[in-house]
Amino acid sequence: MAQKLKIGIIGATGYTGAELARILLDHPLAELKYLTSTSFAGQDINEIYPFLRPRFSHKLTEYKAGDTAGLDVVFIALPHGHSMRIVPELLANKSRVIDLGADFRFADLALYEKTYQPHTAPEWNKKAVYGLPELNRAKIKEASLVANPGCYVTAATLALKPIVDNLKFVSDSIIIDAKSGLSGAGRALRQDTHFLEVYSNFSAYKIGAHRHQPEIEQNLGGLRVTFTPHLLPVNRGIFATIYVKLSEKLKKENALAALNNAYKDEPFVKIVENPPVLKDVVGSNYCLISPVVNDDRLVLISALDNLIKGASGQAAQNMNIMFGLDERLGLERLALNP
Amino acid sequence: MAQKLKIGIIGATGYTGAELARILLDHPLAELKYLTSTSFAGQDINEIYPFLRPRFSHKLTEYKAGDTAGLDVVFIALPHGHSMRIVPELLANKSRVIDLGADFRFADLALYEKTYQPHTAPEWNKKAVYGLPELNRAKIKEASLVANPGCYVTAATLALKPIVDNLKFVSDSIIIDAKSGLSGAGRALRQDTHFLEVYSNFSAYKIGAHRHQPEIEQNLGGLRVTFTPHLLPVNRGIFATIYVKLSEKLKKENALAALNNAYKDEPFVKIVENPPVLKDVVGSNYCLISPVVNDDRLVLISALDNLIKGASGQAAQNMNIMFGLDERLGLERLALNP
Amino acid sequence: MAQKLKIGIIGATGYTGAELARILLDHPLAELKYLTSTSFAGQDINEIYPFLRPRFSHKLTEYKAGDTAGLDVVFIALPHGHSMRIVPELLANKSRVIDLGADFRFADLALYEKTYQPHTAPEWNKKAVYGLPELNRAKIKEASLVANPGCYVTAATLALKPIVDNLKFVSDSIIIDAKSGLSGAGRALRQDTHFLEVYSNFSAYKIGAHRHQPEIEQNLGGLRVTFTPHLLPVNRGIFATIYVKLSEKLKKENALAALNNAYKDEPFVKIVENPPVLKDVVGSNYCLISPVVNDDRLVLISALDNLIKGASGQAAQNMNIMFGLDERLGLERLALNP
Amino acid sequence: MAQKLKIGIIGATGYTGAELARILLDHPLAELKYLTSTSFAGQDINEIYPFLRPRFSHKLTEYKAGDTAGLDVVFIALPHGHSMRIVPELLANKSRVIDLGADFRFADLALYEKTYQPHTAPEWNKKAVYGLPELNRAKIKEASLVANPGCYVTAATLALKPIVDNLKFVSDSIIIDAKSGLSGAGRALRQDTHFLEVYSNFSAYKIGAHRHQPEIEQNLGGLRVTFTPHLLPVNRGIFATIYVKLSEKLKKENALAALNNAYKDEPFVKIVENPPVLKDVVGSNYCLISPVVNDDRLVLISALDNLIKGASGQAAQNMNIMFGLDERLGLERLALNP
Repeated sequence: MAQKLKIGIIGATGYTGAELARILLDHPLAELKYLTSTSFAGQDINEIYPFLRPRFSHKLTEYKAGDTAGLDVVFIALPHGHSMRIVPELLANKSRVIDLGADFRFADLALYEKTYQPHTAPEWNKKAVYGLPELNRAKIKEASLVANPGCYVTAATLALKPIVDNLKFVSDSIIIDAKSGLSGAGRALRQDTHFLEVYSNFSAYKIGAHRHQPEIEQNLGGLRVTFTPHLLPVNRGIFATIYVKLSEKLKKENALAALNNAYKDEPFVKIVENPPVLKDVVGSNYCLISPVVNDDRLVLISALDNLIKGASGQAAQNMNIMFGLDERLGLERLALNP
Repeated sequence: MAQKLKIGIIGATGYTGAELARILLDHPLAELKYLTSTSFAGQDINEIYPFLRPRFSHKLTEYKAGDTAGLDVVFIALPHGHSMRIVPELLANKSRVIDLGADFRFADLALYEKTYQPHTAPEWNKKAVYGLPELNRAKIKEASLVANPGCYVTAATLALKPIVDNLKFVSDSIIIDAKSGLSGAGRALRQDTHFLEVYSNFSAYKIGAHRHQPEIEQNLGGLRVTFTPHLLPVNRGIFATIYVKLSEKLKKENALAALNNAYKDEPFVKIVENPPVLKDVVGSNYCLISPVVNDDRLVLISALDNLIKGASGQAAQNMNIMFGLDERLGLERLALNP
Repeated sequence: MAQKLKIGIIGATGYTGAELARILLDHPLAELKYLTSTSFAGQDINEIYPFLRPRFSHKLTEYKAGDTAGLDVVFIALPHGHSMRIVPELLANKSRVIDLGADFRFADLALYEKTYQPHTAPEWNKKAVYGLPELNRAKIKEASLVANPGCYVTAATLALKPIVDNLKFVSDSIIIDAKSGLSGAGRALRQDTHFLEVYSNFSAYKIGAHRHQPEIEQNLGGLRVTFTPHLLPVNRGIFATIYVKLSEKLKKENALAALNNAYKDEPFVKIVENPPVLKDVVGSNYCLISPVVNDDRLVLISALDNLIKGASGQAAQNMNIMFGLDERLGLERLALNP
Repeated sequence: MAQKLKIGIIGATGYTGAELARILLDHPLAELKYLTSTSFAGQDINEIYPFLRPRFSHKLTEYKAGDTAGLDVVFIALPHGHSMRIVPELLANKSRVIDLGADFRFADLALYEKTYQPHTAPEWNKKAVYGLPELNRAKIKEASLVANPGCYVTAATLALKPIVDNLKFVSDSIIIDAKSGLSGAGRALRQDTHFLEVYSNFSAYKIGAHRHQPEIEQNLGGLRVTFTPHLLPVNRGIFATIYVKLSEKLKKENALAALNNAYKDEPFVKIVENPPVLKDVVGSNYCLISPVVNDDRLVLISALDNLIKGASGQAAQNMNIMFGLDERLGLERLALNP
């Protein structure tokens, strides 16, 4: 058996960090060696996430620059703005890095800075590889720094890329009406994550002003899209309903062909005839996509688990690619259903 | 005090029928005299809906043609196809009729027949008044037969009508991405209403093929729209996210002005600056609408309770209008929140 | 028509304060004159609770001692420890006071102090009347200060009092296994009220150590009980499953007789043959109670809405009693169901 | 690598059957060869359970007696009353059998017949081994027919057995207040499994009359218990709050010692100091148990996933034991949390 990868997670107590731990515990070639937390340093991670108790105990430490020496791969699961500060020292320590935050996702630094904040590691940004395996597998394999895309962007990009590349559509007609489970909002305490604000409720937020919109537009070659995120009263899942006005009348087969052609060999993107429901993917690393066509109107449904294919599962998939492992290792479980 | 209205409900044990009973129990001038059910005739309605026990007991009977004599108003809460058979005899018995089903909602019978089924009472269809109070109040006041619109249609029409009447928009650009709580699917047992199919789940259904699309199009003067209904894992509520491409760059004030102007005197339609969340309306007869404008793109949020403003509350509002009562009577309660 | 009561709510932006506002808006003889908030003074209450927008606008102020002059009744909806400080000045200002907190609920001050904290207004404690209408109606009518009991205590006391008063039971055998919707935990941000901690989850807390246990024991004449509260993943409702070992074999009729006899004239306590479900009461001021008897084992189900009969509805019921109004005024609405 | 086990599932489209398929797809030594369904014969199982689409396709057939020849193990996931008819022919065909139903769970046939129905295979009942690994591992290893216990019984028995075996308690004082997610009610359509009857609701059912009570009593050597099942508005999970009156004052350590001693080497039963919440176990095969002691009163919390440790996971665990495999194979994944 191959030697196990020595792994660090910077920011292990946010949802994506803990999810990464959960996923990698089932990975036969992963060994969790270093888990950091600013807020909970000194505690065991299973005090913060008691569901880990039956199998996992690991003391959290505060991140220090030299501590990652000897790790094969370090995942960064921190809010944007933090990675750019620590990536240089992680790479200097010879670990390969997979960043689940936004800092290195934009080829165009000006767009990053407009969307987020000033960038303090521009020279490293040039070396970063955008970590969407289905678009970028070869480069990911060689990368020392992978910028792992997030949930909305993955769902929208995977559904739209083969369409805009292969079908004729009306410019400026793309609308992404996306619905997300609450774990996308993170573990921090805010009034709008209080149970009573979310349960049995539904809402739109940051209409036309969400930070993921420019990233989707980047992935589609600069196309302008309309993007509305909504909060679903569930814990996990992204369900995107995507509208494209076509320039000609087409049939479902045309859309299916474009999608199937793009993903026929992909282990984690599946094109299905009947639209998926959210629970077809929750708990899994799969993204399911289905098209409906009425003359010149195309509706795409794209569904994935925001913490898995939309974050930590995709990060583990990137790790598998980077280290030449079977891409599916540790990631093939199906949705937990019902 | 005015004399109480004698009221019948045909189909009192579906969700809209029982909701009507619940609402009218709080109406100071309503007296429930006649409740029918085919499946549960002979039982007390509070055996079927035990939440009624503390205040209401009424034996359900099977509907018979002559039984409605002496009733001031009869509500029909049956699936489409039934009203057209019984409306003639109800009207012959001198009751005024409010039909919560689809049979008399279409001015164009051919469109009804294409969407639903052959119509057996075409001469009565001509006399029916479409029961959206905000558009049709004067005619409702005089009507003997009111066709009460449903939940998706009310939410979409109220938001869109002032926009398409007052702003310039790109033809064929209107998209209605609507999300509904499960009570819209009715009380019947189907695999897709089983708790385990819905809880923590989300899905789209009848994409581009839902029967409410032609009705919305009728209300907008024949405009073509794209309509996608979704199932929210909650019991009540419609939340519609509506997209309109404008023909010019505008500001939020332009959309607000159009909406405020249309509804400034309306008791149950409120235009709000901050988009409503679903629980702002659940349990109430209010429809809340809010616009967001980015240059030439308009996003409208429209929210209501599907069983109240989207069905039984609207029916009671129509009753108030028809009988010259204060339109707000029995209907002013706010959402149950949290 | 009688003159309206001028009403103040101290602490109007917690859940019970806002619920009181919601309830009193539907009360024909209530006029909300004075709403205070420490955190949100200067804002309109409908900015904090947007569901109020369609009907209610009121600027929140910081509580000041003299401001309540001229109010007929002041409700205090603050955490324990606050009421005892302000009750003296409220009463000095001639308002009658209904306290939704715990400060004046214990006849035995030592028990209060053991359970909560030192008491700074012991002389007022003597004048307080325990506000459970079904046990204490006559005294409430005359009281200037009413201590309104909470949700768990109301559900347990109403079910158990007629049993322990009328049936023979095994000492020390009473077990109250109670389940509460999350609104009982309040609006404050804590990790355990985060949506993701509660949704699709269930937990017990403060097993054998909850502050409501001594209050229940007080209401039962000092009987010792075992009390386990649990958190239900819903917004509202108390569902208590109560076990009593009887000293003899009995039939259901014996328990029904004891309960019916106690509550036959009560407007808001209903004894039902078939056990209630939670949604039979959520949204209403009713408490439904049902007994099951197997030989010498009695199981009681008791259900109510924690924010209504378990807090603000009961407070309004007390107000009606204190001012000689029909006790049901503003409180008769049924559960919102489905 | 060892040869894969050839596996059949009789009744593959109920929840426990499909869950077994889901679990065994992740088992490295399991090969699903034969899946039957009466209602859906001829269809692919992934049409009934679309979440299986990404990885699994298998045509369902109607069960026929000879078809199981050559299978190493056959799981029966049918309602009670069916297994007793087909077990003889399955065993004749040389498969070992794990029955997830109730037919062979009672050593005392009279008790089975009183609880369920007449038993038609009494001679096979004698050979059946009760499949609770923690109590019966050695016999399970040798068994040709294993009767897999259900969810309530597993949760209650695992918590209570070490207590009643090791501590002194008051006879007839044991109360099991159990709460179950809805998947325990099965996939069949009934009014009480309709989403609107369950969502945001809570209820008790079959108070003192549930079929699992005698089975729990059997496992505790005939002790009489009081058992109340409740329905939680979630899809999965059993949470049992169990009360035992002790005959002497004890400390938590005494209860912990009894439990730890019983389960210290168990892979799937974990004793924890802080009571588990439901989501600590949902999605996993673990049963978590925690005691709270106040003088002479003991409260036990026991939590497990009803479809896994309470059904299909336990069945797979039994399979591992029967075939000499590592008992943890395919079953170690942690809860899906959040």
